[in-house]
Amino acid sequence: MKRKFLVVCHDVRTDGAFSLNDLPGSGRADVCARCVVASLLISYGIRKDTEVILHLSGEPTPGISIRINGSSVKYLNPDERSTAALIRNALLKYREGKEVQSSPGVFVWRAGLEDILRNENVYYLKENGTPLNQLNFSGDAMFVLGDHKDLTPEEEQVVRKYARAAVSVSPISLYSEQCITIVHNYLDMLEVK
Amino acid sequence: MKRKFLVVCHDVRTDGAFSLNDLPGSGRADVCARCVVASLLISYGIRKDTEVILHLSGEPTPGISIRINGSSVKYLNPDERSTAALIRNALLKYREGKEVQSSPGVFVWRAGLEDILRNENVYYLKENGTPLNQLNFSGDAMFVLGDHKDLTPEEEQVVRKYARAAVSVSPISLYSEQCITIVHNYLDMLEVK
Repeated sequence: MKRKFLVVCHDVRTDGAFSLNDLPGSGRADVCARCVVASLLISYGIRKDTEVILHLSGEPTPGISIRINGSSVKYLNPDERSTAALIRNALLKYREGKEVQSSPGVFVWRAGLEDILRNENVYYLKENGTPLNQLNFSGDAMFVLGDHKDLTPEEEQVVRKYARAAVSVSPISLYSEQCITIVHNYLDMLEVK
Repeated sequence: MKRKFLVVCHDVRTDGAFSLNDLPGSGRADVCARCVVASLLISYGIRKDTEVILHLSGEPTPGISIRINGSSVKYLNPDERSTAALIRNALLKYREGKEVQSSPGVFVWRAGLEDILRNENVYYLKENGTPLNQLNFSGDAMFVLGDHKDLTPEEEQVVRKYARAAVSVSPISLYSEQCITIVHNYLDMLEVK
């Protein structure tokens, strides 16, 4: 089963005009970086069966999306700063009207949420959703969540249109990267059963 | 049930002589920072029932320990850089022979591993240990793990002397901060049952 995570990032400047010395001040590129690491990295390895997409709805060019493939990404390290540098590099190399590979395994292009969700088995990570262990997963799955902010009502409406279920990973409200870690762990445990 | 995490950090310079612009190059203060955040922070809140101790075995003063109390810590944010700054500040304020509060809820003092473990219900987080869900937890618990490096044979011997069990959280090898997130999630789920 392939795993995909789609993180909707609300405030990161999409022109990459931010400092690596102040990631929270960039519109929270630190959150994006932590979500990428939680999605793709494990101790001494990369999750080759996993892909993470950052859908950036911030100014000046809402809709820029960055896809990072576990099977081909290079230069990805667990620290926030170097991961944010990969993200910034992708934003700086963005070109209108085409998909660009900004570094090995990292792709940047412009897409609406619907374009990304349309052909996926979508699960919406949401407090008060169905607990993870009450669902049956089969085939590939794309898990959708917000960054430090919940999805807007408009974004939520689009995601719910495509989602098979809203899924809860915890009785309390957690960070996005913590939710990703828990989803992975649940599926890792399932796969060895 | 109170939760404690003890992270044995092997390479961070204990004199705090490192740059916030190169946390991996500091002896991996980035790993320490992520473990502190995973231990204490959740979305819009702090885990007041949790404490994290970093036991630093690096040069030039092995054995310096930093304890951060969820119930009283201030100025703790989820990004690596600001958390590493709290850690560095504690190291810079360390004084031989006494415990210093370097900032609200952050304490630095010198202790051997045995001093820290002696009066605790210790669980050793270790690959190939007993799966988390096969253990019965009651009372407070201290979970012990390494940073980006496993415990040395000498450290492991001390931890096993006090540990009730070696505990595994995953069928695969994960980062320390991911293990902490999974332990918390397991206990969060238990508490609402």
